[in-house]
Amino acid sequence: MRIPPSIWIREVGPRDGLQNEAPVPVDDRVRLIDCLSKTGLGFIEAVSFVREDKVPQMAGASEVWARINRAPNIAYSALVLNTRGAELALESGFSRLQFVLSASETHNRKNSGRSRDESIRELADVVRMAASAGAEVQCTISTAWGCPFEGDVDPGEVVRVAERCLGAGAGGISLGDTTGIATPLRVAKLCEKLRAVIGNDDPLALNLHFHDTRGTGMANVLAAMDAGERYFDASVGGLGGCPFAPGAAGNIATEELVHMAEDMGIETGVNLDLLLEAARLAEEIVGRELPSGLLKAGPRWKR
Amino acid sequence: MRIPPSIWIREVGPRDGLQNEAPVPVDDRVRLIDCLSKTGLGFIEAVSFVREDKVPQMAGASEVWARINRAPNIAYSALVLNTRGAELALESGFSRLQFVLSASETHNRKNSGRSRDESIRELADVVRMAASAGAEVQCTISTAWGCPFEGDVDPGEVVRVAERCLGAGAGGISLGDTTGIATPLRVAKLCEKLRAVIGNDDPLALNLHFHDTRGTGMANVLAAMDAGERYFDASVGGLGGCPFAPGAAGNIATEELVHMAEDMGIETGVNLDLLLEAARLAEEIVGRELPSGLLKAGPRWKR
Repeated sequence: MRIPPSIWIREVGPRDGLQNEAPVPVDDRVRLIDCLSKTGLGFIEAVSFVREDKVPQMAGASEVWARINRAPNIAYSALVLNTRGAELALESGFSRLQFVLSASETHNRKNSGRSRDESIRELADVVRMAASAGAEVQCTISTAWGCPFEGDVDPGEVVRVAERCLGAGAGGISLGDTTGIATPLRVAKLCEKLRAVIGNDDPLALNLHFHDTRGTGMANVLAAMDAGERYFDASVGGLGGCPFAPGAAGNIATEELVHMAEDMGIETGVNLDLLLEAARLAEEIVGRELPSGLLKAGPRWKR
Repeated sequence: MRIPPSIWIREVGPRDGLQNEAPVPVDDRVRLIDCLSKTGLGFIEAVSFVREDKVPQMAGASEVWARINRAPNIAYSALVLNTRGAELALESGFSRLQFVLSASETHNRKNSGRSRDESIRELADVVRMAASAGAEVQCTISTAWGCPFEGDVDPGEVVRVAERCLGAGAGGISLGDTTGIATPLRVAKLCEKLRAVIGNDDPLALNLHFHDTRGTGMANVLAAMDAGERYFDASVGGLGGCPFAPGAAGNIATEELVHMAEDMGIETGVNLDLLLEAARLAEEIVGRELPSGLLKAGPRWKR
């Protein structure tokens, strides 16, 4: 089994996590991001600029961004689905945008209200807008291991979509297991297939975004690491869930990823004690017990 | 990554699972085992013969065993800690005993009320009693990856304990991650170290018993499979927990293991739909939502 010397973690709790919880006040979102900013995380997805009538959880994104204490070594990003979102994100001063489209046509239409072709053209526009503002754009391909409407998505098709996104100017790809249906071999195969096209030089060119909906989240991380991958999304406390499967677990929990990795000798740069403080804060903010087992049981003693 | 063609699963929900829940009636325990017996599982740990004042959940073990519909192709086992338990199990007609001791001295004293040396002598007596009754004895070494009282346990020490258990006549070893603190590299290393002593000929000579207390359960399975292992414990619905960490998750969920394995092309022999019925029954019996994510979200469509 291939074990990397270090991994990068992008914290998506304030965005993907809170987006799948009942709305919480801007104050609390600022507190959570500030708390996470002290943990050593290198990447934090802070907000999304999407329609506030459809996603009230992300309302006030500009205000959140204006009020947080930005740490100099953290790359904060804002998620956008279109040029309108990108405009707002850039006006707010974000220099890193996360554009999202879906590997499957049906999911893309439901999530973005347009076809994949249209989303890719939109991405090209977003990239141009960002470039003029000195910002960069990464692209998330959601439903990369399958779509709740269409079923399995052919990995070759995912790679073709990724190539088109890179061709449109995306600086990197994130593969999203939106409904938590990826299993380890599927993960390894898709990573390898995509790396065959984008090359292995830049570990940060490919990010893996797993949901632990069916118990495979951390096994998928292990499979991705074995395939050579080193850049993962995770959500503090395991915040969030999946809108298509009520009650299902959300992203893998950041503290569980840090805890496992560090115990395996894989550096994350994250202080686990501070991260657990952030997880406790997240739990307080949403007012319910979060799925993270580590948060309940505490770390093993040696780390 | 090494992927086996098939794995064996020993269902421990009726024992390790229910032992860590509020006591449920014998009737319900019988119903659960009968339901599990129809799923294709090859091994079921049905009961334990332990002190009923200390473990009221397992009271009436003989009655449970007398009343279940035993399937001919299933190896049912009973857990015992000593000759008294073995006597009762053999009198009840069990032909497969699971003897438990701990890798760490302190945990063994707390769990069994005696030293490890005494437990190993007791094991030898249990083996002799079983042999006269035509029964076999497997041995679980709990706290194999560390002890809540003593911290890390040296893998060399675990292997020495295992050798002594085999020397005392145990037919196989199960390594128990009692408090869910194992991580993938530790798993692979201990499996390899133990296999160097016991050899690789018999896949069933080594069973892995993981708890998903800190999110590493399924990743540990993957690491063990990569190390060549093919025999795992799991608990339907993720029943149970750990007495030393209230609120913590229990064993890995059987249906999540089956679901992941089958999607990876690894045969389990288990019918997932029937297993999910058993998981729903388990949930009904204990009257609370069980930790299994698959039980909430349902299987991916293709399997």
